[in-house]
Amino acid sequence: MDIYLVIAIFVGAILALVFAVIMAKRVMSFDEGTERMKKISASIRSGANAYLKRQYTIVLIFFAVMFVILGAMAIFGLLTPYVPFAFVTGGFFSGLSGFVGMKIATAANARTANACRTGLNKGLRVAFSAGSVMGFTVVGLGLLDISIWFTLLKYVFNLDASGITSAMLTFGMGASSMALFARVGGGIFTKAADVGADLVGKVEAGIPEDDPRNPAVIADNVGDNVGDVAGMGADLYESYVGSVISCAALGVAAFSGNGDMQFKAMAIPMIMAALGIVCSIIGTFFVRTGEKAEQKLLLKALSRGTNLSAILIAAAAFPLIYFILGQENWTLYWSVLAGLIAGVLIGKSTEYFTSDTYKPTKKLASKSETGSATIIIGGLGLGMLSTALPIIIIGIAVLVSFFVSGGSASVGKGLYGIALAAVGMLSTLGITLATDAYGPVADNAGGIAEMSGLEPEVRERTDALDSLGNTTAATGKGFAIGSAALTALALIASYIDKIHSMEPSVTYDSFSVMNPLVLIGLFIGACLPFVFAALTMDAVGRAAQSVVIEVRRQFKNIKGLMQGKADPDYAKCVDMCSRSSLKEMILPTVIAIVVPIVVGLVLGFYGVVGMLAGATASGFLMAIFMSNSGGAWDNAKKFIEAGNHGGKGSDQHKAAVVGDTVGDPFKDTSGPSINILIKLLSMVSIVFAALVVQVHIFG
Amino acid sequence: MDIYLVIAIFVGAILALVFAVIMAKRVMSFDEGTERMKKISASIRSGANAYLKRQYTIVLIFFAVMFVILGAMAIFGLLTPYVPFAFVTGGFFSGLSGFVGMKIATAANARTANACRTGLNKGLRVAFSAGSVMGFTVVGLGLLDISIWFTLLKYVFNLDASGITSAMLTFGMGASSMALFARVGGGIFTKAADVGADLVGKVEAGIPEDDPRNPAVIADNVGDNVGDVAGMGADLYESYVGSVISCAALGVAAFSGNGDMQFKAMAIPMIMAALGIVCSIIGTFFVRTGEKAEQKLLLKALSRGTNLSAILIAAAAFPLIYFILGQENWTLYWSVLAGLIAGVLIGKSTEYFTSDTYKPTKKLASKSETGSATIIIGGLGLGMLSTALPIIIIGIAVLVSFFVSGGSASVGKGLYGIALAAVGMLSTLGITLATDAYGPVADNAGGIAEMSGLEPEVRERTDALDSLGNTTAATGKGFAIGSAALTALALIASYIDKIHSMEPSVTYDSFSVMNPLVLIGLFIGACLPFVFAALTMDAVGRAAQSVVIEVRRQFKNIKGLMQGKADPDYAKCVDMCSRSSLKEMILPTVIAIVVPIVVGLVLGFYGVVGMLAGATASGFLMAIFMSNSGGAWDNAKKFIEAGNHGGKGSDQHKAAVVGDTVGDPFKDTSGPSINILIKLLSMVSIVFAALVVQVHIFG
Repeated sequence: MDIYLVIAIFVGAILALVFAVIMAKRVMSFDEGTERMKKISASIRSGANAYLKRQYTIVLIFFAVMFVILGAMAIFGLLTPYVPFAFVTGGFFSGLSGFVGMKIATAANARTANACRTGLNKGLRVAFSAGSVMGFTVVGLGLLDISIWFTLLKYVFNLDASGITSAMLTFGMGASSMALFARVGGGIFTKAADVGADLVGKVEAGIPEDDPRNPAVIADNVGDNVGDVAGMGADLYESYVGSVISCAALGVAAFSGNGDMQFKAMAIPMIMAALGIVCSIIGTFFVRTGEKAEQKLLLKALSRGTNLSAILIAAAAFPLIYFILGQENWTLYWSVLAGLIAGVLIGKSTEYFTSDTYKPTKKLASKSETGSATIIIGGLGLGMLSTALPIIIIGIAVLVSFFVSGGSASVGKGLYGIALAAVGMLSTLGITLATDAYGPVADNAGGIAEMSGLEPEVRERTDALDSLGNTTAATGKGFAIGSAALTALALIASYIDKIHSMEPSVTYDSFSVMNPLVLIGLFIGACLPFVFAALTMDAVGRAAQSVVIEVRRQFKNIKGLMQGKADPDYAKCVDMCSRSSLKEMILPTVIAIVVPIVVGLVLGFYGVVGMLAGATASGFLMAIFMSNSGGAWDNAKKFIEAGNHGGKGSDQHKAAVVGDTVGDPFKDTSGPSINILIKLLSMVSIVFAALVVQVHIFG
Repeated sequence: MDIYLVIAIFVGAILALVFAVIMAKRVMSFDEGTERMKKISASIRSGANAYLKRQYTIVLIFFAVMFVILGAMAIFGLLTPYVPFAFVTGGFFSGLSGFVGMKIATAANARTANACRTGLNKGLRVAFSAGSVMGFTVVGLGLLDISIWFTLLKYVFNLDASGITSAMLTFGMGASSMALFARVGGGIFTKAADVGADLVGKVEAGIPEDDPRNPAVIADNVGDNVGDVAGMGADLYESYVGSVISCAALGVAAFSGNGDMQFKAMAIPMIMAALGIVCSIIGTFFVRTGEKAEQKLLLKALSRGTNLSAILIAAAAFPLIYFILGQENWTLYWSVLAGLIAGVLIGKSTEYFTSDTYKPTKKLASKSETGSATIIIGGLGLGMLSTALPIIIIGIAVLVSFFVSGGSASVGKGLYGIALAAVGMLSTLGITLATDAYGPVADNAGGIAEMSGLEPEVRERTDALDSLGNTTAATGKGFAIGSAALTALALIASYIDKIHSMEPSVTYDSFSVMNPLVLIGLFIGACLPFVFAALTMDAVGRAAQSVVIEVRRQFKNIKGLMQGKADPDYAKCVDMCSRSSLKEMILPTVIAIVVPIVVGLVLGFYGVVGMLAGATASGFLMAIFMSNSGGAWDNAKKFIEAGNHGGKGSDQHKAAVVGDTVGDPFKDTSGPSINILIKLLSMVSIVFAALVVQVHIFG
């Protein structure tokens, strides 16, 4: 039976990639529009290409250094020889996911704008197809990477189950490192360009958003692609792969002593991923609507697709678990279901707190009446308060996944249940990512429409698509944050398994919070997301400042620019953003890699487990807090722009713009990076576990 | 020997109270100044009195309800019969500390202003004496409460050591509840009045701060007294008592099986507190300087006093521990030293991040150049980054206290060491609180000087005293936050001891972070400070809004007010602030009491321990983050007002004012309340432990 399972996984991966290619062809079959649109799209494309090239060059150096370090450790017997190679492939595929996403998004932006000249629905089709390319590339490459390694390790190197998962966890570290670079670098780029363009263009020079006279306007649009698209692609590749392999590892641990069951438990998350791909593809066919649809109907069309996929996978997971793991383990199905439902509910909670159709954001908008200070306090409070519901949801999901899957009888099986919940949550990533990734495409299309001087209704349509994307993105965020927390927990368990394999007396029960090493680790871990958020926010500030200076310089020195007689030097701003964001992305990532090693060497593995638990708890909170504060400020501003509380240009609007500017690095740089951070910490700890077991000061 | 120790503790308490009375007489011997000054001071006094009266009435109802609940539990055998009474006395003394502090502060404000007409040094003497009254009242009442109960329980009711500490922990819960009411209620009052007065008076009407035409100006000054003085008094009473009794409880646990040693270990923190009082009194005599001293010399004078006290207690603690606990336990001395040093270092770190003589705040001020959004992002980043150093300091202090005091051999002794570190940190509270509490007195004096139309140099002198107070307050904050974290850890250990006494199989090792109940508790606990901060910030916002509306109404309706021909209705604003702050203080406090009970009933004691650990870690971080962000914004604004970056009235200044307004609830409402929150959670858990052991759904 084994080989059929492996084939099934391969088929899933290939299916996703084929579907992505079909979607890409569909996107390319549309017309790019006028010459001016083509030209603008080309400059955005070349800017994004140039940035990614430089980013990947730097990342390459990092990977080369890490390869040498890991190689040396392998030589000294601290790692298996597969590790350095697995690490590199994880990074490669993660980077490739981002690259493909960026390629299609920059190809689709002008096409979406052009399609919007015909109608809203046609625009949606182009943008959503581009989003689908991204979504299915991520899951396809993820599953391909997993299945290739799985085949190699099992059938070529003949490793046993725990040897396989142990090596596979390392490509998680590669993927996470790449993802962090992409998210942080891209996040800094996009926000520096955005803030810089707004501060000088909108506020100082008084020209509208996306005005072609603004020297930072191309950089701003490049930013959407390298941050929101390439960054998100690498990020979700990491989430997807991380959840599957950590679940596989825990499956092996849960059924230790029974090789056949180990193999099956390991295969379950992979097959579920493959099944999820099929369900997602089916779902995309239901994202369609009549030619003259309004926005509300479009949202329904999108939701229909994602909901259908979720229901299909929920139905398919039951026989999968029942027949493969056997009757006595069918209760693990509840874990999958708990994960799926928790993901949806966290998404709903995000939507409630950040959408201007609900009370919190409406109330936040009203705080603009008393100035920027009150809207800032209100937004911070809103974000902090919004952490409570997701905590309770995740808590219940963990309780259900752990105990229903027999946790009190077998801790290992309970932890496997928690990991399965994360896999359940991410199984339909293909389609949820598609509904998420089309937003930046629509955003870019709007920019191109503005810069090319298309009819106002085109911009209205792209704006409608964009704001629609904000709602669907809320669900996507719920899945990303929720799965990050569950995957991080699974990885902590894998770490302990790894320690247990070297020090058999150490078990899941060995890490009491009253052990001062665990406790100090907990404090340090809880602190890391704070420090990380601070560093990334500061980085955005610094990078934005350099853009501000450059834009001011161009406005002053290029004659005829304001009159539209001379072109600004767009490339200079793109270059500026590239250089500063690449410089700034290094420190946070290095910290995420160095701290777990140092904590391990000083406080031993007790300290590491404490650190991971602390970072997961506080990282989950900070990620939700920052995403929701940022989202609510953004939508409160849009709510005012729609004519409430004085509308555009009023003092209230100015106050809301301050809120939105504060929220930008919150929701697009720091918040999403924290999701990756908490997993990378665990991955690094796992890779360096053997070193820490041998060398440590305390413990 | 026993009885001598008890007498020594009593003597310490009486000494502190006598010294407080002497200092109070000294304050009263100064003149209140002109008739106008007397009148203003009287209205502030009556406003503060009225507020406290109403606050205590509400708190009384709360205590009555809790007394009935605890009484019922005692009848059902879930608590000892002493608990309800101990609970009430804790609350009573905590409230009394706040009340006395408020009394002396409102008596000293006009006297300080009047003394400043003569010179800076005389002003310092009055204000510092008032601060000393507060400082020594807090420690005197604290130690008195402890020694009375100790005597009663030991010599009248003949309880054994663990019976004594078990009952005494309950008055910690009383003190913490009272402290939370006082901090939250007072914190909301003071910031609502402050923000309200500023937003309408300074920004809308364009009149200067503390202008008598502003209807909220008296409320603002009342706020300083009920928030910064009465709130702080109740708060630090709680910290002081909490650290001593939790240490006593752990001493009993550490030497279980040896009644004599248990008694001695229990007495150590109390005697150290008594010794600390003596050292603090000696220290105060060194706070003096020549008649014509500048600000720099004054700061030196203050530091000389606190440093000397710290050195004295460091020297005195060694023989104390060596002779009472015996040669084999002398290493516990390192714990005391570690605590003292950690307190100083955290204070230094606070000073570095928030004082405008150092780089971070200077850089923050420069961010005002690009507007309010950048200074807000910068301040948030600064606060988040500033958590790293204190975490490392506390980590090292915990490591040293635990391991040097023999933790690897005996976990109990190690935990006792951690608790001793907290006691060491707070032993000189008498003088550190004096240097902290004189700040609000000087602030009030400045308000009176302004409103009475005294010469400008008087206001300059009170401002100098006030800003001096900001620096010393930084150290005070370091001690408050650091001791809160250590005390909370000690209380978690006490909680486990309590569980262990009912379920002997449960030990310090039973609470692995991989136990899903512990883990979910950890997540919920980590979330509580976020929710708590959100609730208190929102409360300030709502209360401020009501003040804004009232002030606007008075400006509009009272004819001749702006021309200075008619008096505003000050009392109405005071009443407004009182009502809204009292209404708003209830929910956060109730949450702090209800959540640990609910978590216990659902997730059992495993969940509770996780919750306490999570709340301590994230609460420590949030308290530092919010205090330091707030402090840095405040001082960045002052730095600009001193003539940098455009100075007063510039756009940069306006941006900095936005930062300061956001920082107000951060540093004066939410931040300091979190310190109390994390201890109250533990205290409540301890009191309801027996209930939770019998009734719980999971675990």
